[in-house]
Amino acid sequence: MDFFEKSLELHKHYLWKLATQTKVPLDSFDDLSTFYSPWVAAPCLEIQKDKEKAYEYTWKGNTVAIISDGSAVLWLWNIWGLAWLPVMEGKAVLFKHFWNIDAIPLVLSTQNPDEIISTIEHLSSNFWGINLEDISAPNCFYIEEQLKKRLDIPVFHDDQHGTAIVVLAGIINSLRLKNEKLENQKIVISWAWAAALAIGKLLRKAWASNIIFCDSKGILSSSRLDLNPYKESVVPYNKEDISWTLLDALVDADIFIWVSKGSILKSDDIKLMKNHPIVFALANPIPEIMPEEAKKGWAFIIATWRSDYPNQVNNVLVFPWVFRGALDWKITQITDEHKLVAAYALADTVKDLSEEKILPNVFEKEVVNNIASAITSIG
Amino acid sequence: MDFFEKSLELHKHYLWKLATQTKVPLDSFDDLSTFYSPWVAAPCLEIQKDKEKAYEYTWKGNTVAIISDGSAVLWLWNIWGLAWLPVMEGKAVLFKHFWNIDAIPLVLSTQNPDEIISTIEHLSSNFWGINLEDISAPNCFYIEEQLKKRLDIPVFHDDQHGTAIVVLAGIINSLRLKNEKLENQKIVISWAWAAALAIGKLLRKAWASNIIFCDSKGILSSSRLDLNPYKESVVPYNKEDISWTLLDALVDADIFIWVSKGSILKSDDIKLMKNHPIVFALANPIPEIMPEEAKKGWAFIIATWRSDYPNQVNNVLVFPWVFRGALDWKITQITDEHKLVAAYALADTVKDLSEEKILPNVFEKEVVNNIASAITSIG
Repeated sequence: MDFFEKSLELHKHYLWKLATQTKVPLDSFDDLSTFYSPWVAAPCLEIQKDKEKAYEYTWKGNTVAIISDGSAVLWLWNIWGLAWLPVMEGKAVLFKHFWNIDAIPLVLSTQNPDEIISTIEHLSSNFWGINLEDISAPNCFYIEEQLKKRLDIPVFHDDQHGTAIVVLAGIINSLRLKNEKLENQKIVISWAWAAALAIGKLLRKAWASNIIFCDSKGILSSSRLDLNPYKESVVPYNKEDISWTLLDALVDADIFIWVSKGSILKSDDIKLMKNHPIVFALANPIPEIMPEEAKKGWAFIIATWRSDYPNQVNNVLVFPWVFRGALDWKITQITDEHKLVAAYALADTVKDLSEEKILPNVFEKEVVNNIASAITSIG
Repeated sequence: MDFFEKSLELHKHYLWKLATQTKVPLDSFDDLSTFYSPWVAAPCLEIQKDKEKAYEYTWKGNTVAIISDGSAVLWLWNIWGLAWLPVMEGKAVLFKHFWNIDAIPLVLSTQNPDEIISTIEHLSSNFWGINLEDISAPNCFYIEEQLKKRLDIPVFHDDQHGTAIVVLAGIINSLRLKNEKLENQKIVISWAWAAALAIGKLLRKAWASNIIFCDSKGILSSSRLDLNPYKESVVPYNKEDISWTLLDALVDADIFIWVSKGSILKSDDIKLMKNHPIVFALANPIPEIMPEEAKKGWAFIIATWRSDYPNQVNNVLVFPWVFRGALDWKITQITDEHKLVAAYALADTVKDLSEEKILPNVFEKEVVNNIASAITSIG
């Protein structure tokens, strides 16, 4: 039986990954009167007077919505709403299992950005946070921007910011091993789209001074006249305003971060980089360059999405405790500063740092505890 | 400590009534690969090929949304969305506790009917059914009508149809005690609005031949020129097209069903009715006439919403198993025929029928089992 068949069988066997549970006694008319009609009116009236009381009296106090339109699925691409529900439900059980957050998966049957915004807006009061998931660019930028303006709860597009935080944490630890500073690195990021732009922006906030973005047509520079505003916004990061191709960008680069559809890179391409470079090859499930091949090109550190190689870049390390932290500290907007603090806190959880261990894994008990206490630094 | 304070204290103590739970193991990288990335792709692809598979592979197979805009709250009236969440959450725990249905409470921050419809439409694919709740008339008619047309899952406005089913069940048993037939009863219903209209329509389907509706201006008859289409639709139920006031309607009536804001009726008014009448006084929490007062007017059977008097009319007896039945029988529209069958099944669960026991209560184990097996008759 292959992995696909085994997954189908187990999904059927357990009859769903997620369920609700009742936390109060319901064994007498007294219980029903207290938690339902008529005395449930008491918390209703309290909330009507002060909406903040909803955090005390309803499960809003611990509930996040994970919302996707299925338009940007890493390995399947545009799959539409309902077919994406198994992934959202999977994410919801991770939230619960590791961080005791009640997360509700909600797939949308529209991919129209304004309809997505108004749907989420009308629902938002039920939740203390919104985790946007797998929404394609450029809609994801617009949707997040609008929701952040309109809502009084945290909105976090995990594909962008969760990825950016875990990549920055991995880079921080890689540079600790090399005893080098982010300010002095020549960084190449390809392709310039959702997650990649978010990674670049967060690296910039962490004082990276030279970040060269590429897309399918080559380097983003001031000579490119075909860029949309999102790509244009990162042209100034290209310190010497170099142009031409991805391979030109790689010459003497220190760090290469590749978030693409899995185009192929060879060890010879890595040899264009400076000695002992850092390579993040984040296509899923097949990286743009396999770790063995990157090693042949003298890469010092290689990180991928895969759990069967060292240095797995896994958002599971990030999104739940960003939300846990936001909740515990009553943060209504997750800012760049929060993301920076989160990345450093995550990097600091690795005590046995090595080329093969720049990031923790979610099953390390101590790590989970460290993460929990690191939350307190997101203030 | 009064009931209100006790309810607040207990709501705080339990830190929420509802939570999620994880039903699958998540203790190894293998588990994560199976239920999350990458092999969760297997059920996604199956659902993309056939959307019906979502019932097998995701919690859609057991999940209902309870949706309200807070606009028609029995004792608080228009309270707006969020402040109504404690009630929705209470309803969700009843769904889980008594019928093992995973119900998600969702309050909306809009009361615009078209926005409500589009919000629910965009979300609907996550659920196998929608329980509409506490939405004011006439919006509730329009919203339910539109959603029934647009969605391929059951939509059920509990305030209308749940109430109608439980009232019909109570009337059926009352008439069994009197050994009379519904066809021959003179029935008065006041006021002619959401739940009341639904009750009248279901009684009509059960062959009631003479139903006189009243509103604040008196009897609905063909001489009234001020009626909206919803009220107009029940004028033909007024067999002799009588007019004037509620008290005129009550003369020689057999059954009086009152769903109002709790105006006051006296025992003398009940004496206008035929001997040994049936009185349902459904205002909450104070009935339009207290059972003691109705008894003085020689009422034979009195039913209210209250649990501290006999004959409690409680939707909890109805809504969860209408949904359970719809799910188990893969019914996509709950029709009048389903509602009739449900009412008779509910009436049949009462074995120790008496003037003080025309309806079961939710804690009777046998009743719950009878209800469960009665489900099979909703086909």
